[in-house]
Amino acid sequence: MLIDLNCDMGESYGAWQMGSDELMLEIVTSANIACGFHAGDPDVMAITLDNASQKRVGIGAHPGFFDLPGFGRRRIIGDSPLQIQRQVIYQIGALKALAESQGMRLQHVKTHGALGNMAAEDDDLAMAVAKAIYLVDKDLIMVVMPGMRTETAALKVGLPVIREIYVDRAYAENGNLLSRKLPGAVLHDPVMASERILRMMEQNAIVTANGTLIPVPIDSLCVHGDTPGAVEMARSVRRLLETQGIAFATMDKVLAAKA
Amino acid sequence: MLIDLNCDMGESYGAWQMGSDELMLEIVTSANIACGFHAGDPDVMAITLDNASQKRVGIGAHPGFFDLPGFGRRRIIGDSPLQIQRQVIYQIGALKALAESQGMRLQHVKTHGALGNMAAEDDDLAMAVAKAIYLVDKDLIMVVMPGMRTETAALKVGLPVIREIYVDRAYAENGNLLSRKLPGAVLHDPVMASERILRMMEQNAIVTANGTLIPVPIDSLCVHGDTPGAVEMARSVRRLLETQGIAFATMDKVLAAKA
Amino acid sequence: MLIDLNCDMGESYGAWQMGSDELMLEIVTSANIACGFHAGDPDVMAITLDNASQKRVGIGAHPGFFDLPGFGRRRIIGDSPLQIQRQVIYQIGALKALAESQGMRLQHVKTHGALGNMAAEDDDLAMAVAKAIYLVDKDLIMVVMPGMRTETAALKVGLPVIREIYVDRAYAENGNLLSRKLPGAVLHDPVMASERILRMMEQNAIVTANGTLIPVPIDSLCVHGDTPGAVEMARSVRRLLETQGIAFATMDKVLAAKA
Amino acid sequence: MLIDLNCDMGESYGAWQMGSDELMLEIVTSANIACGFHAGDPDVMAITLDNASQKRVGIGAHPGFFDLPGFGRRRIIGDSPLQIQRQVIYQIGALKALAESQGMRLQHVKTHGALGNMAAEDDDLAMAVAKAIYLVDKDLIMVVMPGMRTETAALKVGLPVIREIYVDRAYAENGNLLSRKLPGAVLHDPVMASERILRMMEQNAIVTANGTLIPVPIDSLCVHGDTPGAVEMARSVRRLLETQGIAFATMDKVLAAKA
Repeated sequence: MLIDLNCDMGESYGAWQMGSDELMLEIVTSANIACGFHAGDPDVMAITLDNASQKRVGIGAHPGFFDLPGFGRRRIIGDSPLQIQRQVIYQIGALKALAESQGMRLQHVKTHGALGNMAAEDDDLAMAVAKAIYLVDKDLIMVVMPGMRTETAALKVGLPVIREIYVDRAYAENGNLLSRKLPGAVLHDPVMASERILRMMEQNAIVTANGTLIPVPIDSLCVHGDTPGAVEMARSVRRLLETQGIAFATMDKVLAAKA
Repeated sequence: MLIDLNCDMGESYGAWQMGSDELMLEIVTSANIACGFHAGDPDVMAITLDNASQKRVGIGAHPGFFDLPGFGRRRIIGDSPLQIQRQVIYQIGALKALAESQGMRLQHVKTHGALGNMAAEDDDLAMAVAKAIYLVDKDLIMVVMPGMRTETAALKVGLPVIREIYVDRAYAENGNLLSRKLPGAVLHDPVMASERILRMMEQNAIVTANGTLIPVPIDSLCVHGDTPGAVEMARSVRRLLETQGIAFATMDKVLAAKA
Repeated sequence: MLIDLNCDMGESYGAWQMGSDELMLEIVTSANIACGFHAGDPDVMAITLDNASQKRVGIGAHPGFFDLPGFGRRRIIGDSPLQIQRQVIYQIGALKALAESQGMRLQHVKTHGALGNMAAEDDDLAMAVAKAIYLVDKDLIMVVMPGMRTETAALKVGLPVIREIYVDRAYAENGNLLSRKLPGAVLHDPVMASERILRMMEQNAIVTANGTLIPVPIDSLCVHGDTPGAVEMARSVRRLLETQGIAFATMDKVLAAKA
Repeated sequence: MLIDLNCDMGESYGAWQMGSDELMLEIVTSANIACGFHAGDPDVMAITLDNASQKRVGIGAHPGFFDLPGFGRRRIIGDSPLQIQRQVIYQIGALKALAESQGMRLQHVKTHGALGNMAAEDDDLAMAVAKAIYLVDKDLIMVVMPGMRTETAALKVGLPVIREIYVDRAYAENGNLLSRKLPGAVLHDPVMASERILRMMEQNAIVTANGTLIPVPIDSLCVHGDTPGAVEMARSVRRLLETQGIAFATMDKVLAAKA
């Protein structure tokens, strides 16, 4: 069994540091790099690209709303899908140029925060994001949560798709993440998190908080990088899964193995 | 005699309009499009690209300092050349992706305002800008003022170069623009402006305010778009020069004719 | 009959101009001045204050979301009422200091765009805005649309209240503005607009698009400043109402006359 | 001997943390709070004010250039002194309103980073800052480095003045800070730093890196909050000085004791 492990990165900004990118790059196989709208700046982007490249980590764009004060986590209502599409093209293009100027190639795109949540729920926004990616480079992988509108849009547009599962979040009966406000929504124990992921991978299904199985393909695991203990969680989960015979590889390789 | 006529464009932002882009696009042959740092936003950029394309105007990136409050006209001191290089790559990349998503190709890059002035005077900044352009696409034309550090840098890096003259600005004895604070620095009469340009083109030289000739190649004329009467000035100068046998074409074609 | 006439102002930003503030200041009696979050900057604020003062126009703060790209018209979902309260205090405080440094006193506060619309519909946000105003200066007038949550909040907090009617917008049966998407939502004819306002003032009631009367006190008329023809509309309406015996005065004076 | 100990604070922004404000508030007697231009946002400002108040720390505004990407450390050249004055009034006003809304009173103003450095060297900018402070509240203390243009401006305008010395920075022969590029420019040993400060206070003079004495009044010590080991440095220096009979108090009390 082959799987990708992805994490958001490059979310520092100017004098402000965030996350433990260098440690995390030792663990993950793909990095979602902020593009300057909700976090990141040209320096942070270039340095994160360079660090990721040295660790042979697959690099992706992580576009979000233009919202530094809210870190892209606030829903901004009022832009049309076409406007959103242009904002996503802008961000991917900026990161792509930095990557190519350093001799690197973008592997994937994964939307951030409120933009990702809104697109997952809305067909028009999902199509706007998928089209934006396709128009920049039709070989870019679109990372989606299985069952969401973004998955449908990616398939309709014809993009390669990676379906991801969250390592440290419980799932509701509809296959979406359980609200953080509910008890048990966030998993803190690496052993339990690993066992749950292992079971999902063996069953090719999401296991909900209630134990229901929702059949979905699983191509990648997502770990958070900006929470306390994130590095330890990621490291433990990877190690535990590796002892169970799971191998980790970039999204590109996971898709190639499936093909 | 073949020459390009370029103008800054796409400098609106959100609800704020600037310039008379649609009128100007009827007159000029190349457009320098702001990239969201000093002006412009993803919508304005996409719409300006589309308008320029319909008029078969050559499109270029117009990167500046990240300075909306100062419109990129304030000198921002403290970033290293490498940081500037990354800021320029980011901006060109963003516009390039929008252009390519609309089936268009960038023709050139021209720096804006304080960034352009600082690069013209400083070898390291000039090289940072030239390298940024080269790293994104070595076929992009770099627009420079003849005699400045940016010209040297563009040649050293190996970029195609377009040398431009300002239609409405007087020149000092050192070949730089006469300070706006001095009398006669800005030309308002289209007839006089056209005659001066014609003389420069015939002599292949800058004609200074004092009448001195400074031999330089002249590939493009620059008109301002954000001043009152700008459209009328541009239209009159183009018409007057055309009656004198000057033909107007995009930078690409001017360079091809020279080759 | 005494009434105030208010208009948004100071919505230029850096090099970008908006509206016809100087002309509008000849017509209105109160000015709502943007505070740098959705529009305006320290220069624009200081200059607008000075111009308003010379015309003896009452000055007010016009706080909005921190959203230059969207001009404060996009709903930004995710900040708590307490966070909104602090954002409003920040903006009023900034304008107040500029006003007092020029020997002027703030008269009122009116929220802008999406922030105003959201507060009008939500008790908690309405209270956040009212408390913010009260905490800065309990004598500041809060401008509200009659019947909205903001009116209730202002009264509960104990602020002086000015209730305003839109000169150029039709009203729905529930007393709210008719959606711009519906036919007849925007009035373009000054004579018809004036007659409608006159009838409302005589009846002390909103007259809806269907002709229903909704009894409300009317203390101020709002005209838009950023639409084509805005100045002419404002001037005509004021003139027509004056010929019918309506007198115009600042909010302060309108409230004093009612007391 | 009575002295103040001040530190920059509230320099977090949105999701990004900076410094160890809560620990530092146990040690210092005055806090310079960022006002949203180079760092800080309305939330961070309100929370920092509240924390400072609970520790009975004197609170001050810490205005800087509008430069989040550069943390206010880049020199921005192009604004007139009047424009700078308005930017400073805006920032002080915003913090003042937040402070007063929480029942607190501003004690002082200290400029940040490049704005502070530029004002220290330029009479017009120094006057712009001093006037801005005076126009908001003529009782606000202006914190200056002795011998700089800001000291002259504060005295000319008639503001109360606090002269500060840097705990961890060596001084050049002209009384200015030794460039960070030179060896020995930054002191890392709390014992040596304390002994040097003690000697300066006993002599009422700056002791330069070469041992020269430059007579100046010393009212406050400044410690940095954003460097590793900053808290330990501040704590040690305060303890060591206290054992030598130095007492610490807010700027207000230091000035009252001198009067």
